[in-house]
Amino acid sequence: MPIWIGEQEIEDLAVGAALLGTGGGGDPYLGKLMVQKCIRKNGQIQLLDPTEVPDDQIVIPTAMMGAPTIMVEKIPNGDEALKSLRLLEEKFGRTAFATMPIECGGLNSTIPFVVASEAGIPIVDADGMGRAFPELQMETFNIYGVQGTPMGLFNERGDYCLLDTLDNAMLEHISRGIAVRMGGVAHIAEYVMTGAEVKRTAIPNTISLCMKLGKAIRVANERKNNPIEAIQQVTRESIYGEAMVLFKGKVIDVERRSTDGFVRGKAVVEGFDEFNGEKLHVDFQNENLMAKIGDELVAMVPDLITFLDVETGVPVTTEGLKYGFRVICLGIPTPDIMRSPAALNVWGPRYFGYDYDYEPVENIHKRRVRIG
Amino acid sequence: MPIWIGEQEIEDLAVGAALLGTGGGGDPYLGKLMVQKCIRKNGQIQLLDPTEVPDDQIVIPTAMMGAPTIMVEKIPNGDEALKSLRLLEEKFGRTAFATMPIECGGLNSTIPFVVASEAGIPIVDADGMGRAFPELQMETFNIYGVQGTPMGLFNERGDYCLLDTLDNAMLEHISRGIAVRMGGVAHIAEYVMTGAEVKRTAIPNTISLCMKLGKAIRVANERKNNPIEAIQQVTRESIYGEAMVLFKGKVIDVERRSTDGFVRGKAVVEGFDEFNGEKLHVDFQNENLMAKIGDELVAMVPDLITFLDVETGVPVTTEGLKYGFRVICLGIPTPDIMRSPAALNVWGPRYFGYDYDYEPVENIHKRRVRIG
Repeated sequence: MPIWIGEQEIEDLAVGAALLGTGGGGDPYLGKLMVQKCIRKNGQIQLLDPTEVPDDQIVIPTAMMGAPTIMVEKIPNGDEALKSLRLLEEKFGRTAFATMPIECGGLNSTIPFVVASEAGIPIVDADGMGRAFPELQMETFNIYGVQGTPMGLFNERGDYCLLDTLDNAMLEHISRGIAVRMGGVAHIAEYVMTGAEVKRTAIPNTISLCMKLGKAIRVANERKNNPIEAIQQVTRESIYGEAMVLFKGKVIDVERRSTDGFVRGKAVVEGFDEFNGEKLHVDFQNENLMAKIGDELVAMVPDLITFLDVETGVPVTTEGLKYGFRVICLGIPTPDIMRSPAALNVWGPRYFGYDYDYEPVENIHKRRVRIG
Repeated sequence: MPIWIGEQEIEDLAVGAALLGTGGGGDPYLGKLMVQKCIRKNGQIQLLDPTEVPDDQIVIPTAMMGAPTIMVEKIPNGDEALKSLRLLEEKFGRTAFATMPIECGGLNSTIPFVVASEAGIPIVDADGMGRAFPELQMETFNIYGVQGTPMGLFNERGDYCLLDTLDNAMLEHISRGIAVRMGGVAHIAEYVMTGAEVKRTAIPNTISLCMKLGKAIRVANERKNNPIEAIQQVTRESIYGEAMVLFKGKVIDVERRSTDGFVRGKAVVEGFDEFNGEKLHVDFQNENLMAKIGDELVAMVPDLITFLDVETGVPVTTEGLKYGFRVICLGIPTPDIMRSPAALNVWGPRYFGYDYDYEPVENIHKRRVRIG
C-alpha cells in the first residue's frame, strides 16, 4: 500500500534525514521548503515500499553532489535533478517508474521528492547509503553490482553532461571534476536500475525511518520529553542499532575548507556534565568520519556520528556547526548490509586514509562503559 | 577537385603543422605514424577545399585536448576521436559529411586524418585557429558564432562524456576538468557545423599550407639549401605574413610544469651569431605566447612564435625543448581573420594575463631592424 506524503511528513523527514546524514547531505531547511512548495502545487507524493516496485520497471535515483557549504549558497531552481533524470530516460528510451534517494541527508532525502512531484511519479522508500557518504561509489548499488553510468549532471545554468564510465570509481572521479567545474555543485541522476535490483541492493525503508526519527524529535519537544530517548527508541526498533550518546559539550573549534568538491575539516568539542574535562575530536569529509575522545577512538565510518543541539535534539550539519554550539554527539550502529567486507572495503576507515580496521561503535561503547 | 593524401604528404604535414603549432598541438612523430598506419590499411585520404563542402552538410571537427607532455606518454588506441564523432552523429541523428582539425599542430593536424580514414570520409582543408592555441574557445568557430556543444569526449579506456554548455567559455572550463580527470588527455569532437558555417568561420587551406611548409623544409634539407629561406618563401605566398628570424641561440633553461590540464612554463635562449650577448625569454601555455629579447617584446599572441632546429629548420615542440638545443626562433604574422578586435578579445595578450595590447610582430620587427 503506497503512503501519501504531505507537508508535515516532509517537515519530519528533513530533520530525521539530517540525523542519518551524519553532518552531510545538505541543509534540511532548504530541502524541506522545496518539497513543500511542490506539494502545495502538485499535491501529495506517493511513497512506495521497495517490494511494490515491479521487477522489470526502472527506477532512476536523483541527488545533488558537491560541497554542502556551496549548496547552501547556490539555491537550486528545482528542476535540475529532473532534467538529469529526463536525460537518462532519453538515453535508455524508457520512462522512469519511480525515483529514489541515493543517501539520507537534509537535501538528498528531499531532492527526489521534488523530482517525484514534478514528474508525477512515486518515490521508493529506500536509499543506497543508509546515511550520507561523500563519494558516489559509496552506494550499496555499487557494492552489490549495479552499473552507475550512464549518469546525468545538470547545473543551475542549464549546462549538462551525460557521463559513461567503465567502472563506478571512475564515475566518482570524473563526475566530481565536472561538479567542481559546474560551480561546486551538480544535480545528478545515476545508478539506473530495475525493480529487481532495487530489492536486491537498496537499504529498505530509510525514508520512513527518517520520518519516524523527525517525528519522534518533534513530538518529544512538543511534550517536553527527552528527544534523545525518543531517538533511541526509534533506532532500537529499526534495522540500525540503538543510538548511544558518545559525548556532550560545547564546540570550541571548527576547521573547514571547501576543496576538490568536498568540505573537509574537523571539530573540537569541550565536554560538560559527565564529560567535563574531556575533549572530543571529529573529522569530516562532507560527513563525520571519525570521533575520538582524547586519544581514544569512539566511533568510525560507516557507523553514524551525528551532532544534535543539546536542548532540542535537532541535528546540526557540517556546514552549520559553529563555535559555541552546545551539542550532543550521537553514535548509531549501521545495519549489517553496510558492514559486509565488500562494503567496508568501499567505505571503511582505511578507504578514508585511517590506519586502523573498523570496529563497531556498540562494541567500543560497551568496553568504554565497562571500564568507565 | 579533391586531393588524395598519401604517406609522403603526411610526413610533410606533420612537420609543417608543428611549425604553425608554435610549440603546441602535440608530437608530430606520433601523429604521423598513426595516419601512415591508417593509409596503409585504408588507402589515401581525401582532402576537400572548404568551398567543396555542400552548405547543408555537417562537418564534425576532431582533436585531442590536454597537456602535450602527457600526450606523448599516453599513446592513443587510434579510435577515441572517432568514437567522439560517432557520439555526436548519434546525438544529431545525422552522419558527418567530413571531419576537420580545430588547430594546426603535430598531433591535432593528424588526428582528424585518422578519423577520416577510419570513417571513410574526407577531411576539410581548413581549421579553427590557424595555429595552435591552448583553449577551446580560441577557435574562429567560436569567435564567429558557432555553438561548440554538444561535445563528445573519450579517453583511451573508453570512458566518455557528452557535454552541453550554454556558452563556449563554459565548454572550455568543464571539458578541461573532464580531460584532467580522464587522465590528462581527452579525445574530442565539438563545434559541429554546416558546410556554410565552415566557409564563413574556418581559416581556409591551412592543411595544405602545413604540407607546403613541411615539403619546403624537407626539400631544402635534401638540396642543402637554407630551410629558413624556404619557409619564408612559402609564408610570403600565403594568407600569413612572411616569417622573420627573431633570434638564434642555445637553450640554457626550460621551466615546465603540467598543471590544470596544460603545460605551462618558459624557456631562456642565449644568443649567438648576430644575437651574441643577448637573451631571449619565451613564455608558453602549451603554445608559445610571448617572446622578449632582454626587456623588449618582440612577438606576442596571436602571432606565431616557433622554435626550429638551427641546422635543419625542423620545428621543436614545447615538450621537446631541452637544454643545449641550438635553435632559431621564428615569428610569423597571423592572417587578418585572426587579428580582428573580436579575435584579439579571445586570444590577445590581455586574455593570457599580460598587461599590454597586441602589436603585430612585423611592426615590432621593422622598428627593431630600423633602430638596429
